[in-house]
Parts: sequence; structure tokens; C-alpha cells
Amino acid sequence: MDLIDGNKIASDIVAELRAEVAQINGRKPCIALVRVGEDPASVSYVRKKEKTAAEIGVTSRILLPPVTITQDELFALIDGLNADPSVDGILVQSPLPRGFDEVAVFRRVSPEKDVDGFNTLNLGKVAQEDESGFVSCTPAGIMELLARSGVDLKGRHVVVLGRSLIVGKPVALLALQKKSGANGTVTICHSGTSNVSALTRQADVLIAAIGRPEFVTADMVKPGVVVIDVGINRVADPTKKAGYRLTGDVHFPTVSALASKITPVPGGVGPMTVAMLMKNTVKAFRLRQVR
Amino acid sequence: MDLIDGNKIASDIVAELRAEVAQINGRKPCIALVRVGEDPASVSYVRKKEKTAAEIGVTSRILLPPVTITQDELFALIDGLNADPSVDGILVQSPLPRGFDEVAVFRRVSPEKDVDGFNTLNLGKVAQEDESGFVSCTPAGIMELLARSGVDLKGRHVVVLGRSLIVGKPVALLALQKKSGANGTVTICHSGTSNVSALTRQADVLIAAIGRPEFVTADMVKPGVVVIDVGINRVADPTKKAGYRLTGDVHFPTVSALASKITPVPGGVGPMTVAMLMKNTVKAFRLRQVR
Repeated sequence: MDLIDGNKIASDIVAELRAEVAQINGRKPCIALVRVGEDPASVSYVRKKEKTAAEIGVTSRILLPPVTITQDELFALIDGLNADPSVDGILVQSPLPRGFDEVAVFRRVSPEKDVDGFNTLNLGKVAQEDESGFVSCTPAGIMELLARSGVDLKGRHVVVLGRSLIVGKPVALLALQKKSGANGTVTICHSGTSNVSALTRQADVLIAAIGRPEFVTADMVKPGVVVIDVGINRVADPTKKAGYRLTGDVHFPTVSALASKITPVPGGVGPMTVAMLMKNTVKAFRLRQVR
Repeated sequence: MDLIDGNKIASDIVAELRAEVAQINGRKPCIALVRVGEDPASVSYVRKKEKTAAEIGVTSRILLPPVTITQDELFALIDGLNADPSVDGILVQSPLPRGFDEVAVFRRVSPEKDVDGFNTLNLGKVAQEDESGFVSCTPAGIMELLARSGVDLKGRHVVVLGRSLIVGKPVALLALQKKSGANGTVTICHSGTSNVSALTRQADVLIAAIGRPEFVTADMVKPGVVVIDVGINRVADPTKKAGYRLTGDVHFPTVSALASKITPVPGGVGPMTVAMLMKNTVKAFRLRQVR
């Protein structure tokens, strides 16, 4: 069994981007990071993004509106960033506090600066295989993990567990694309699927993004399967100082014994999302230079 | 075996729309039908759309630019229709002559008037389950055929043959949606799928949109399957006056013996597309009244 090392692959991408950005004369790519309120997970995500941007040489501009901001005020803030020529990419950290219409907020970000890939137009471009758009970071990171681990989806059966807008659907559309490395046959299962094991057992590549701790067990996979575990779940564990441990959607100890390749949690898909966000930001910068 | 009668279902929808449009006081919904050149199939499609519009009471405006029109001139023509307040829906008949970038042309149509559902934004809305958009007519017609035949996809395995932007991908996204009647588990197969029979034999509902005459044979399905045949292929047949006959992607004589429900070709999915185009046009009219 080969471990797919997301930390290593993400740091390779960061190094490539750093080298690329170093070649840029004059203004460097700039990402605006918008965080509403003080949700602890959001604070830590935004800090990580800021740190990685600095490592690469991408400028970051941090905007921290209070939790009392109205949706219209947030729209106005986004409109300002959309119009600002010194901003290439805009990220509004999810989850937003209760009361916000996330889809509407993400749609407000100009498609040309939507480095998070959540704008409706960019989602449509994924379906259209139009490379001028931005693929959202988790599915893009999954495809990059597979490509850099030598996994070609051509002629393989890819089973996706979960139909979320952020992972399941876009990764299914990417795996289906006609481009090199993709061309998979794709099955999408979800909470309403009957006899899910019968389907997961057919997977050559299994992408678990269902948000249930250790849902995928050894009896649900076939030997040799490639497993991408997108889940990050907290499970109570009194033996840990924090009182919990992190686990994926896959029962790693038993499934890893059967898999040919597998991502760990943490250290698999997680680190890739920030790397792909930066890759999108540099892409947005390049596309804006051309326009 | 029950035949799913597309002519009957389409004519029910046309009758419903006619009743709905009769209730509208003042200006009626209007669709602009744009046909470039004189492709015989396009001529017949546009004529059929015009005729159905008239039946319903939808105004149609026919624009017939010559095959010599440039893409920029076609864009200007579309821009004019986008800006025209008396036009609710715009259809640019596909296929366009060689040399046109179809995706770019379809993207030029304002999303609010894109009753063909080919605009990138409307495709993204299908993925987002956002009902304010327009679903393209063939996949919308398939879902309507299933719903009106009492086929609920919940907990069923839907196998889609074909990954086209016009049928395969959007119908897969629709079958996956969380709304009533959908909630299917979906597999998408295509020309690069290995051992396609092993997958089609698992289908509770099989949607064939692969463009190969009589590709699906009896050994590829399980008894009781529901079959939607999207193919329309011409096969040489010297016994026919025209020298050919129309056939679907399914070998009807043998597969229909196993199926619980099946669409014929012609008379299945085909008639639905025009009905759904008109349904989208009336929807566009209503949405524009609200805005």
C-alpha cells in the first residue's frame, strides 16, 4: 500500500508556485481573504491561507467584517473588491454565519476573481470542460493528488460517495472529462443510495465525501482500490489531550490493508485545498494580464 | 411492458400551457427562433417549434440570417434580442454551420432568456439545484417523461449512457437532485467505459444517449428495467421509401420484451423537447414579469 502524501504534494505545488511568482516583475498576484465573524475554524483556515500566500509571494489582503454585517453590506464589500484592479482573487471564507445566503454571496464574487470556484458560472464551466474558469479547490486538489500519484482514471470506475456542491458533484464532473488523466466511468452515491456496498465494491477509485466518520469499511472495497478520503470528522477520544481525534470517512486501519493507494486524514486532501486556492489565484492574475 | 408515449405526454403539456397562456391578459410570451442557413433538419425543427408556439398562443419571431453571417454579426443579433423587452425567450437552432463556436454563441444569449438552457450559468444552476434557471429541453423532457409515467428515481440506480453536455451530464445532475421524484444513484458511462454491459445490467432506469444505433441489446439489461431512449439514428433500409428508417440507441424489439416501461423512437423523447422549450418560454415570461 502506498500512502498518498497530501502534505508532500501540496508543498511541491507551493514550491512550483513560489518559483513562478518569483518570475513575475512588478505587481504580484493578490488574494483578498474575507472572513465574517470569529468562528474558530474560520480563523485558523484564513490564517493558513495567509501564511501560504506569504510563502509563495502572493499578496494577501485580509478583510474582517464583524458578524453584525448585513448581507447587503457584504455584497457592497465584494463589489468593491470585484472592481479593484489590484485584487486578482477573492475568497469569502465558508461557513458564513447563520442568516447569510451562501450561494448568493459566492455568486456575487466576479467569475474572473472567483478563485474558490463556487460561482455558478465556474461550476457550469466545469461541466462544459471550459478551462477558462476556476475549479473549486477540494475537487481540484483531489484530481491533482490522483495525477501526481500516477493514477489515470481512463477506463476505471470512479465511485463518489456524496453529492455535495463543493465536492461530490464537481469531482464527478472532473473525473468524467475527456482530458488526459480523466475519462473515468463515474457513479455517484449518497445518503439515499440503497445497497451502497455493492457499488463501492466495484470502485477502482473510491472518493469518500459523505461526512460520516469511518463510514467506509474493509468489506465495502475491493483489493487494490485507490481511496481518496475527503472527510474530516471529530470523534470523541478521551485518550487524546483535546478529547477528540480527527478521522476521515474511511476506516483507515482496515481499508488501507486492502488499498493500493490511500490518503490519510489528516495529511491527505486537506493540505491540497490551500495549495489549489493559490494556484487559482496565480491563474486569475495571469488571465487578467491577458484580458 | 408499458410504452411511454412521448407524443401523448408532450401533447398534455402543450394543452396545459395553452390553458395557462389563455389566462394571460395583454402581451403573450414571445420566443425568438434564430436559424442560420438552410440545413434541412434545422428548417424542420424550427418549423415544428413555430407551429407548437402558435398552438399554445406563444408569439414566435423568426430570424433567418444567411449562412454567410459572421459570428460577430450573430452576436450583435443576439444582443439585440437580449435587449428587446418584447422577447422572453431566445433559441438559436443547433447545429450551427461550421466555423461557429456554439458554446460561445449559446453563452451570448442572456441567461434570463436562455430557454434552451445551454448558457453556462443555467448549467451551473442545474448543479446547484437552483430553480430560477432553465434546464435544457432534452434532459428536462426525460425527467418529465419519468415523472408522468410514475417512475420515482428515489433509491433507484440510474445508468446514463453518454456524457454529452446536452443530455448525459445535465440529466445525471437532475437525477441526483434532492427534489421529489429524483434522488437517484447515478452512473455515467461513455465511449471509454470498460465492460459497459456489467454496468447497464445494474440499471433500474437506463437512459441511452450515446448516438449508436441499437447499441443496447437484451443481454445488457435486467428484467423490469425502465428504458429512456434518447437516440435518433438513421439506418439504411431499402424496404423504406426514404431508403432509411429511424432507430434509437436501443434495440427495441428485444429490449422492450424485458423492460417494464420503455420509450419508442420516434415518439418518445423527441416530441418532449419542443414541449419543454415552450414550458421554459412561459417560465421566462413569468420570471420577467416578477423582476
